Amino acid sequence: MRKIQKVVLSSRPDGVLKTDNFQLLEGNCPSIGEGQFLIKNSYLSLDAGFRQWMNEGASDNYLSAMPLGEAVQSIVLGEIVESRHPDYPVGVHVVGRTAWETYSIADGSDLMTIVDVGNGVTEEHHLSVLGPSGMTAYFGLRDIGKAKAGDTVLVSAAAGGVGSLVGQMAKILGCRTIGISSSDKKCKWLTTDLQYDDVINYNSEPGLDKSIKALAPDGVDVYFDNVGGEMLDTVLPHLALKARVVLCGAISQYDDDSHAGVRNMWELITKRARAEGFMFSDYVDDYEDAATVISQWVAEGKLNAPVSLTHGISTTAAAFCDMLTGKNLGKSLVKLF
Amino acid sequence: MRKIQKVVLSSRPDGVLKTDNFQLLEGNCPSIGEGQFLIKNSYLSLDAGFRQWMNEGASDNYLSAMPLGEAVQSIVLGEIVESRHPDYPVGVHVVGRTAWETYSIADGSDLMTIVDVGNGVTEEHHLSVLGPSGMTAYFGLRDIGKAKAGDTVLVSAAAGGVGSLVGQMAKILGCRTIGISSSDKKCKWLTTDLQYDDVINYNSEPGLDKSIKALAPDGVDVYFDNVGGEMLDTVLPHLALKARVVLCGAISQYDDDSHAGVRNMWELITKRARAEGFMFSDYVDDYEDAATVISQWVAEGKLNAPVSLTHGISTTAAAFCDMLTGKNLGKSLVKLF
Repeated sequence: MRKIQKVVLSSRPDGVLKTDNFQLLEGNCPSIGEGQFLIKNSYLSLDAGFRQWMNEGASDNYLSAMPLGEAVQSIVLGEIVESRHPDYPVGVHVVGRTAWETYSIADGSDLMTIVDVGNGVTEEHHLSVLGPSGMTAYFGLRDIGKAKAGDTVLVSAAAGGVGSLVGQMAKILGCRTIGISSSDKKCKWLTTDLQYDDVINYNSEPGLDKSIKALAPDGVDVYFDNVGGEMLDTVLPHLALKARVVLCGAISQYDDDSHAGVRNMWELITKRARAEGFMFSDYVDDYEDAATVISQWVAEGKLNAPVSLTHGISTTAAAFCDMLTGKNLGKSLVKLF
Repeated sequence: MRKIQKVVLSSRPDGVLKTDNFQLLEGNCPSIGEGQFLIKNSYLSLDAGFRQWMNEGASDNYLSAMPLGEAVQSIVLGEIVESRHPDYPVGVHVVGRTAWETYSIADGSDLMTIVDVGNGVTEEHHLSVLGPSGMTAYFGLRDIGKAKAGDTVLVSAAAGGVGSLVGQMAKILGCRTIGISSSDKKCKWLTTDLQYDDVINYNSEPGLDKSIKALAPDGVDVYFDNVGGEMLDTVLPHLALKARVVLCGAISQYDDDSHAGVRNMWELITKRARAEGFMFSDYVDDYEDAATVISQWVAEGKLNAPVSLTHGISTTAAAFCDMLTGKNLGKSLVKLF
């Protein structure tokens, strides 16, 4: 009998998410029914946005609160090892939304997509630069941010899974890029490996507000916001006329219900600026075109796809918590097999 | 010698703006120089947005803080009575940004536009439905809100100068309209005179949040926001997918530096929604086309242009303060001559 290991949400986070909120369980792998297939998961993708749905009562148009005692929902990549579904044969690789588990049963829904591995495209690429993070960076910058050559693009959580790609893509589009991060180490990495033009360590003097003013005296044309809350509030007064704020994530808000609000919304009026939210999954019809463009950038050596790897499903909970506190460089993945 | 009366900002508001912050002065009317002309002002337009620039240090891309001791800046309509400017002859009516004063000297800058009075179009029309309020409602709804038939359009300060027009224009476009106001009296007026489909008195049970939920269970497609702050925060969780928030004014914010922030920005992400600010003055090239459309609506009896009038320049300060606390129905104007 095939064994399955999974990480379940065993308790709701009380403020900051901890590894104690999770539990690793082992059991027998259930058999598949008609129209289903079994995926052997090689990589789990750790995406900050999923933190939101770990809270009690979290619910929106995208997902509902994850049930306690069940495997934590996640984007996952694996290979089909059993199938009773004609469109998903054994041997193909798929990316989809399943869970933190070594094997997943799926039926083709939940964003399940067959992907090709080979010719320079790796499994890791499909969860980083060609996966949700890559699509988020690409469509956020292009369709929401309307980034164009000459724009000043400011990126928060610039060393994270999405931010590490946004800066590079903005450079390819001819923008000037400023990355915000939490340490000198990460800031250095942003300039050496990710071609950021300028960086701001918001934990060091003279602080975020004055640093933005010094680096972008004429204002920020595109703010790619992965953080929300207080950081967004600090950026708003620095927007240029007709600026676009790409609301991608709100990592500052997930742990804390009592967070301060955004007080500078008025700036959007006087700057005639726009703040717009989106989800990469809205662009599913355009993935193939985007993947062609992105693959070309990777092949030409213009775009790095940095990942922070941990190994084995037992590392998942800690890796997720570490990512939320910004310990990763680039996309956080857990390699299972 | 011609006398001039003007209302000056004599002190900065300490929180809530009061009539004590203003002073009525009288003096001799200065003579005009080459390239200038003298306007005898028949109406002052009271626009909440100008409140912002009465604060110390207020400054943005639009205006700077109004200087103490000088006439309060305002949109004004009048007739040219002396001229040394070839393009602005004696006898024409003009609308422009001058000040709370009986006569203004101008040189053609500051949005100064010659307008035609007659054929059913009155002076009042040029400061209401064809003036800043009308243009704000029209372009806000059309260009920022992208309102279309079938949309549910929610409007705050619905009985105000802009809100009283937004609801009617949205109805003309085939939308369903919900107006938010502060009293039963105003709510009644919204349905009887302005064709609002539904109204919410936010001061009465069951309160704004539950009322929106009851009236728009499928969500709000366009929120036309004249208020900002806490009200905006309450509306955000009720947005429909792909909703548009038209950031037009933030009347709740002008008096109070310590206002609470907007805590529900995250809703814009999960709803893939957009919040965008604008100024009517951005659309100056399209005024003529808009005026043609709006005039037609007025002529066909589809669009009321309600105004709250007071008479004489000495009523200006009180009328402005009353408007900020919502005592007006429709556009607030002061008739001078």
